[in-house]
Amino acid sequence: MEFKVNSKELEKLLSKIIPAVPTRTPMPILENFLFEIKDGSLTVHATDLEISLKASLNIVAEENLKILLPAKLLYDVVRSLKETTIVFEILPNGKVNLTTDHGKYNLSYLDHEEFPEIPNFPDDSTDKEDLNELNMNGTDLRFAFEKTSFAMSKEEMRPAMMGTLFEFTEEGLRFVATDGHRLSNLLNKKINLGIEAQYVLPERAVTVLLKILDEKDVKVYLSKTHMSFKLNEFELISRLIKQKYPDYKSVIPLENEFTLKIETKELHDVIKRMMLFSTTNTRRVKFSISENNLEISAEDLDLGASGKENVNCEYSGDPIEIGFNSAYVNDVLSHLSSEKEIIFKLHSPTKAVVVLPTEENENYELMMLLMPVRLNN
Amino acid sequence: MEFKVNSKELEKLLSKIIPAVPTRTPMPILENFLFEIKDGSLTVHATDLEISLKASLNIVAEENLKILLPAKLLYDVVRSLKETTIVFEILPNGKVNLTTDHGKYNLSYLDHEEFPEIPNFPDDSTDKEDLNELNMNGTDLRFAFEKTSFAMSKEEMRPAMMGTLFEFTEEGLRFVATDGHRLSNLLNKKINLGIEAQYVLPERAVTVLLKILDEKDVKVYLSKTHMSFKLNEFELISRLIKQKYPDYKSVIPLENEFTLKIETKELHDVIKRMMLFSTTNTRRVKFSISENNLEISAEDLDLGASGKENVNCEYSGDPIEIGFNSAYVNDVLSHLSSEKEIIFKLHSPTKAVVVLPTEENENYELMMLLMPVRLNN
Repeated sequence: MEFKVNSKELEKLLSKIIPAVPTRTPMPILENFLFEIKDGSLTVHATDLEISLKASLNIVAEENLKILLPAKLLYDVVRSLKETTIVFEILPNGKVNLTTDHGKYNLSYLDHEEFPEIPNFPDDSTDKEDLNELNMNGTDLRFAFEKTSFAMSKEEMRPAMMGTLFEFTEEGLRFVATDGHRLSNLLNKKINLGIEAQYVLPERAVTVLLKILDEKDVKVYLSKTHMSFKLNEFELISRLIKQKYPDYKSVIPLENEFTLKIETKELHDVIKRMMLFSTTNTRRVKFSISENNLEISAEDLDLGASGKENVNCEYSGDPIEIGFNSAYVNDVLSHLSSEKEIIFKLHSPTKAVVVLPTEENENYELMMLLMPVRLNN
Repeated sequence: MEFKVNSKELEKLLSKIIPAVPTRTPMPILENFLFEIKDGSLTVHATDLEISLKASLNIVAEENLKILLPAKLLYDVVRSLKETTIVFEILPNGKVNLTTDHGKYNLSYLDHEEFPEIPNFPDDSTDKEDLNELNMNGTDLRFAFEKTSFAMSKEEMRPAMMGTLFEFTEEGLRFVATDGHRLSNLLNKKINLGIEAQYVLPERAVTVLLKILDEKDVKVYLSKTHMSFKLNEFELISRLIKQKYPDYKSVIPLENEFTLKIETKELHDVIKRMMLFSTTNTRRVKFSISENNLEISAEDLDLGASGKENVNCEYSGDPIEIGFNSAYVNDVLSHLSSEKEIIFKLHSPTKAVVVLPTEENENYELMMLLMPVRLNN
């Protein structure tokens, strides 16, 4: 059989699906696209068993079809073409001919039965009691991921922390990510489903969504086991992380009474310089805070080098010396760079520090947490 | 003692010297800058024993000085600073204090005696009989390196081919690079010293010069052992490769009578697509040439995939089938991309192919060579 498709339309479609194709996998079958033609519509699927992506396109085809095509090779060929019509001719010998204005290409295809089953979510088997849905602006969702996902853990010891928490509360929808050293927490105050529930979306789904989300609305479905994101022409389904998210609220100090107000960019520039002097191992940087003065210092014993700078600030509280991992301070400041001024709320050299923007926003609340490191002097 | 320097001026100076600092070296002493202050002038040196760079700057200093400072750390600190005055204070305990508007940094320095001797070339010990010099426009020198240096060999078995040949002839100054699979040859017709001589400049000198050359004139000194390049504020001295350059002329076919004229960009686009189908091992692509038609094909047996395209061309000669390594064809075409049309001159499937621009240029001649690969069908 044959079908025809415009090369640029197919390129656009495949570019949205290829992020789900794993690059190194013990299951080579996952390195294929599933092409499904049904009633003149081509749907392309890909999955790494954790997430799956699909998107559709109307095409010229007389028959229905389901085959597996090598994802990377096909995508590379299609995007190397100028705008042209590609005629796909499926031969019975396991080969596909692609004919274009440029030339002829010949690929091998595989039987679709070899591909793992692609979940359909929600579908008839989904427990309606367990199903929630919401509409969310794509820009808002992207913003939430951008502000929080950097803090997700990479350590497989605690699987729940390798994802981003979606927490529905009375105040709104809260996004939380933490690796135990720093935490980022964004509350979207516009979304209220009237439920209290937690869902943990794995890192890979977040990463792929960050490549795909635009300003268009997204429809999100949630159950105990799956989450799906439907954009216009496009759908991502992800398994959820089963493990319960740690009780992050217990580490957020409520009564950190010392406040340090400081310009974000100025502090960030100092931290970037101090990173040059913080030993690779502990990466420690020391904040010595007294009335309206913050001294930041670091020392690299291996290199026999050290640095010390003073930064203007507004401080109310007892003089305090506290250490941080400079890479984590840098991460937090990078993700607060849109805020002109921020506040550090502190209590003691061993208690978590809260970092907040000084300006309130009617749509969201952003709060980050930094765990101090021990100063052994 | 103390000296003062503007941070942005020092950053600019160090940025030109740091390319000579080796990143991985069995001699950690080479990871330092040699700072030499003499009569109010700061000269910074670096070397990897093959090449050395130096540049100078007038500064405020009362005494003379020679110390070694950690290159990467110092450069990173200096470029992280806004424009400010840096006061260097050299302490007797092996430490240097850097004081700026921002803060204070403390580095370790080493005794300059530990640094290898930096060659001075030409100097009084240079044999004047053996010394040649020329002035060359920086853009012309850059152009020559850009068109040829990609073809230098990376194989240590034949050291001479790991450099770029400077060959002074009656026709001009010829630049040649080859790895035995492809060759690039640029003749600069404007330069004629009236000598016949060959010098082989090592890859690292070429790479560093490509980072530094601009439109300003360069003064070049040449001897049997060294070459130096003096730009305004800056000097590079390189050892030369001692081994004799191979007799590249013997492989340039003089009577390839079949000519194929073709649009560079169109051919390049086809080759890029065919690279997707040329097996990683031999990377072979086949040119099947007949009257005014070039068919290009490739096959990847591992993937069970193949591609075939036809390209318009003007061909005069017998029909011929010839194979190339697609990566080398791609390299050659990338470095001819400024030429609208090119000519392939061929003779047989086993003889080297000459590739030329169709348009002549009054200032230079460019010629590339591609060795064919065997077609075993």
